[in-house]
Amino acid sequence: MTEQRTVVGMIDGLGMTYFKPEAMPYTTTLAKSAFFKQVSAVFPSVTNVNNVSICCGEWPENHGIIANSYFDTEANEPAYMNAAELIRVPTMFQRAAQQGKKSALLTSKRKTIELLSPGTEIAVAAECPTEELIEKFGQPGDIYSCEINFWLWQVALDILKNRPDISVIYVHTTDYPMHMWPPEDPTSVNHLQEVDRLISQVAEVAPDAALFLTADHGMNVKTRAWDLRRVMIGQGLEPRFVLSPERDYYIKHHRNLAGCSYIWLNSPDEETRAREILNAVDGVEDILSHDAACERFHLAKEHVGDLVALADQTSMFGDLEVEFEELAANYRNHGSLYEMEVPLLIHNYIGELPAADNFTVNKDLTTFLYR
Amino acid sequence: MTEQRTVVGMIDGLGMTYFKPEAMPYTTTLAKSAFFKQVSAVFPSVTNVNNVSICCGEWPENHGIIANSYFDTEANEPAYMNAAELIRVPTMFQRAAQQGKKSALLTSKRKTIELLSPGTEIAVAAECPTEELIEKFGQPGDIYSCEINFWLWQVALDILKNRPDISVIYVHTTDYPMHMWPPEDPTSVNHLQEVDRLISQVAEVAPDAALFLTADHGMNVKTRAWDLRRVMIGQGLEPRFVLSPERDYYIKHHRNLAGCSYIWLNSPDEETRAREILNAVDGVEDILSHDAACERFHLAKEHVGDLVALADQTSMFGDLEVEFEELAANYRNHGSLYEMEVPLLIHNYIGELPAADNFTVNKDLTTFLYR
Repeated sequence: MTEQRTVVGMIDGLGMTYFKPEAMPYTTTLAKSAFFKQVSAVFPSVTNVNNVSICCGEWPENHGIIANSYFDTEANEPAYMNAAELIRVPTMFQRAAQQGKKSALLTSKRKTIELLSPGTEIAVAAECPTEELIEKFGQPGDIYSCEINFWLWQVALDILKNRPDISVIYVHTTDYPMHMWPPEDPTSVNHLQEVDRLISQVAEVAPDAALFLTADHGMNVKTRAWDLRRVMIGQGLEPRFVLSPERDYYIKHHRNLAGCSYIWLNSPDEETRAREILNAVDGVEDILSHDAACERFHLAKEHVGDLVALADQTSMFGDLEVEFEELAANYRNHGSLYEMEVPLLIHNYIGELPAADNFTVNKDLTTFLYR
Repeated sequence: MTEQRTVVGMIDGLGMTYFKPEAMPYTTTLAKSAFFKQVSAVFPSVTNVNNVSICCGEWPENHGIIANSYFDTEANEPAYMNAAELIRVPTMFQRAAQQGKKSALLTSKRKTIELLSPGTEIAVAAECPTEELIEKFGQPGDIYSCEINFWLWQVALDILKNRPDISVIYVHTTDYPMHMWPPEDPTSVNHLQEVDRLISQVAEVAPDAALFLTADHGMNVKTRAWDLRRVMIGQGLEPRFVLSPERDYYIKHHRNLAGCSYIWLNSPDEETRAREILNAVDGVEDILSHDAACERFHLAKEHVGDLVALADQTSMFGDLEVEFEELAANYRNHGSLYEMEVPLLIHNYIGELPAADNFTVNKDLTTFLYR
C-alpha cells in the first residue's frame, strides 16, 4: 500500500493506432522511460465491461459485467446492466475507501457515475455538471464533442492542485472523437494533442503523483452489419434471444451494434443447425460455445449465451430492421477482437510494481492498488 | 388571471404531419371539441427559438433569442446563446412567480434548464435526473430514445397528482423520434400513441387542469447540404461569418445543419455579389436582407446577419468539410420555412380565452397567462 496520489487516465477508444507520437508526443515519449506495454483489452471490447474491469482490477467472471445489458433467462427479457449493485467485487475506489483513502471519479457520461461512483468522494459527469463546476470551468462541451474531454482533464488538474486529500483520480474521457475520425485525421490529432498536453500538466501540478494510463478498446472502420436474429429466423431457426453487448435497455437505431454477439437457443439440440447458419454469414469469423467463450475470455457464466459469435474486422452485429445493411462510409465502431490492442503505462510510481509479466491486460493496471 | 392549474405540452418536432388520428387519437379527437388551430412556428424553426418564444409568449425581437449561438460582431466570433440572462423579457414561469404561483419545467435536455429554469419551483432534465427521481420513476431512457418522453410525462402526471401547489407544468419532450422516423413508421406511431395516452391521463389525474399543447417545429426529409461559407469563398467572396441557427458553441460533425442561414458580409458593397453567388446555389430558395428578415420574422435586429438565406424543402445549410454533400437516406431535419406548421390546442380552460384571431403563432399559446 502506498501513500502516493495516483491519476488513472482511462482514455476511451485509445487503441494503439491512436497512441502515436504525432498525436500524443508527451505520453508516447514517456512510454520509453516509464513502465509501458501494449496489452489486451477485456472481451468484449466495449466500454462498460472494460471500465469495470479496470476499476476492479478483475475479470468479468469475478465482477459480473459482460455487456450493457444482460438477458434475464428467468424473466425471458433483457435487463439493463448499468447498476453498481451488479458489480460483485469492490472497485479500487471502494478498496481505497476501506483504507481511509478518498477517490474522485471524473467521467464524460452520467451512466458511468451510476455504475462506478460507490466509494468515491467526488463523482463528476461532464454530461451533467453542477452549477459550481460550470462557474469554475465554464460549460463543458456537448457529450458529442472533443471539448468535453478537455474540460474533464481541467477538473482533474484542479483537484490535483486544490484537493491533496484525494488519493485516486480516475479520468474517463469519451471516445466520440475516435468514432468520428481516424487516427490521421487532423481533428483527431488535435483532440489527442490537447489531451496529451493536459496529461503532461499532471507532472507540473502534482510532481508527487503517479500517472497510470490505459484504454478500454480501439476503433476500426466497419462496412456492414447483420441482424443475426433475423438471419437465423430467415433460415428457419428462431433463436431464444440475441444480445449485442452494446445493446442498451432501450432500442436505438444503429446504436447497438458491436463486433460480437451473444446468442441463446431454445434447445441445445439446435446448436449444430445454428452453427451452420451462422458460419454461412460472411461477417461471422468464429463461433464459440458458452463454455469455450467463458474460459477464453473469463466471462461471467450466467450471463453468456449458448453461443458467442465473433465478427471479422469490418462487420457489426445488432438489431436492424433488415437482415443485412451496408454501413455509411467512415462508420467507425468496436466490440470485436480487432479492437483489443491498447496501451498500458505507469509513470512515477514510487512503490514496487508487480513483475512485468503480470501486466498483459488493461485491467492489470490497477489490480495491485489498495489491496 | 386564473387560479386554474395549467399543463403546457411542448411536443418537440410535432409538425402537423405527425399530429394524426392514428398516432394521437386522444388529442386529435380533443381538437374537435377544444380550441384548436393549425398555427405557425416562429422562424427559424429550431427548438430553442421556439421554446423561448412559447415560454415568453413573445417574438424574438422582444426576447432576443434567434438561434443556438449568435455572432458577436465586436469579438468577431460566435458565442453560445443558451443562457437565461440573454432572455430579455420574463418567461411565464417568472410572470407566475411574480403572482406567487409555482411552476415546474420538465424537459429532456439539460440545456433547456439552463435557459428556462429561472422562476421555476421544480426543474427536471430527464438527461440528468436526480437520485430521487430515478428511485421513483426508474431510469429515464437515453437522450436518444422514445422512452425518455414517456418518463417525462410520468413525472408530469405525478406532479399533477401530488403537488397541487404547482400552478404551471411545462413539459418539453425531445424530437429524437421525429428525426429518426417518418410519421407513418410504426415506431413513430407507437411513440406518439404512448405520448397521447399519457396526455389523456391529465384529465383523469387532474380534471381541474387546463391542457395546452403546441410544438416548436415540424420535420422533413433532407437530401443535401451546402456549406455556404465555402461556396462563397469558392466564388471569391469570403463572408465575414456564416451562422447556422443550429450551430452549437462546439462544432460537431453534421449536427449544426438547418434549413436557413445567417450571413455577415465584410462590407455592404458586397451584397449584390453575395446575392448572385447564393442565388446560383440550387438549394437556396430565397435571400432576405437583414431588415426584411427582421420585419417578416420579428427577429432581434442586433443578432441577425446582413443576409438571411432560406433553403428549399430538401436542403440544409451548415458547416461541412466540403462545399456540398449528399445527405444519408432518411436524414430528417428542420429549420426551414417548410417545418413551420404546428398544432395549437387549448382544452378545459375555465377563463376567457382571447379571440381566436389572436392565435396565429405557437407563441400565442401562453401570451395571456399570468399577465
